[in-house]
Amino acid sequence: MCDGKIVLALPDWVGPFLEKQDSVFKDIEGRMRLVIELSRLNVEYETGGPFGAGIFERVGGKLLAVGVNVVIDMSCSLAHAEMMCIGLAQQKLKTFDLGAEGLPACELVSSTEPCAMCLGAIPWSGVRRLICGARGRDACEIGFDEGVKVPDWADTLKNRGITVLPDVLRKEAREVLIKYKESGGLIYNGRQATFPIKESNQS
Amino acid sequence: MCDGKIVLALPDWVGPFLEKQDSVFKDIEGRMRLVIELSRLNVEYETGGPFGAGIFERVGGKLLAVGVNVVIDMSCSLAHAEMMCIGLAQQKLKTFDLGAEGLPACELVSSTEPCAMCLGAIPWSGVRRLICGARGRDACEIGFDEGVKVPDWADTLKNRGITVLPDVLRKEAREVLIKYKESGGLIYNGRQATFPIKESNQS
Repeated sequence: MCDGKIVLALPDWVGPFLEKQDSVFKDIEGRMRLVIELSRLNVEYETGGPFGAGIFERVGGKLLAVGVNVVIDMSCSLAHAEMMCIGLAQQKLKTFDLGAEGLPACELVSSTEPCAMCLGAIPWSGVRRLICGARGRDACEIGFDEGVKVPDWADTLKNRGITVLPDVLRKEAREVLIKYKESGGLIYNGRQATFPIKESNQS
Repeated sequence: MCDGKIVLALPDWVGPFLEKQDSVFKDIEGRMRLVIELSRLNVEYETGGPFGAGIFERVGGKLLAVGVNVVIDMSCSLAHAEMMCIGLAQQKLKTFDLGAEGLPACELVSSTEPCAMCLGAIPWSGVRRLICGARGRDACEIGFDEGVKVPDWADTLKNRGITVLPDVLRKEAREVLIKYKESGGLIYNGRQATFPIKESNQS
């Protein structure tokens, strides 16, 4: 019954792509541009939904881990872009708490505001700041479902010491969402709500 | 920079334990007893927090996957019991949607009500029913943090066609939580809120 192991891998193109990038992103827009580019490439390579994310050191901007949405290819509804980079950064640093004493403060940069699951994951991750590109409503506009979030969700993070910066390069981030829909990308929403515009590349 | 792979494994004792169990659990209490026993053993073996969960076929009760909290040993804040069994069941069945057409309806049985992250993950998982033992407040009583959930969270699942059955063997489930605290188990709550009663067995 029990294989007992979940394996969640980024697409093969991510490694070579990152080798061509800087390892440090000094300004916030630069960090956001990277994760938007990840979201765009995830659509272009047809490896998942139009979402990218990254964990950076807040001061200095060293890149710790990136994520893209690999829900379909990994056969796992947990594999959102934000969850991928949180898990990758934590396992890289060998800690379940990116906010642990002695570590530089980290931030999560996401091409779109987090869904309810990823929002719930943020306080447990230890990141100190969340930077968002497109809004949740931009994802909903193309048919995605962000789940049930408290209306003042950004304030609930702030109350836990996690700053939220919305709308960073929102236009550019939103354009990837729109392009994904126009190209016929699969809009999956957990059970039943799926409407496959084209055949997915699910293995 | 990019290893590109998250690996989340259950503790070594889980496989041999399951080999001694039935593979089918006809009644709800039997399903709950299994996940409470998993939570208890996770404390006894010092392999993680006092939480267990399982995915079962709703009709018939065939066990598909189990999970325990392995946040500390896996160095990953995502590795809650519910997340583990959702990911394991999905990768076993090779689908990101346990509610996909042609699959038998599945349910998530959890020794304690889900935290905000796991709650957010449930609609994406495809399970049709959630069965809970201890309440979220029982976990909070021993110092855990369940995050920010909308007050009518059970109704929000029902609105998505996911039935919620609370308080199944709550007393037995809660006893494991209390025992964990009394035994000096680590209460971790993401960044800073940690208060290590004893040294953790974090590798």
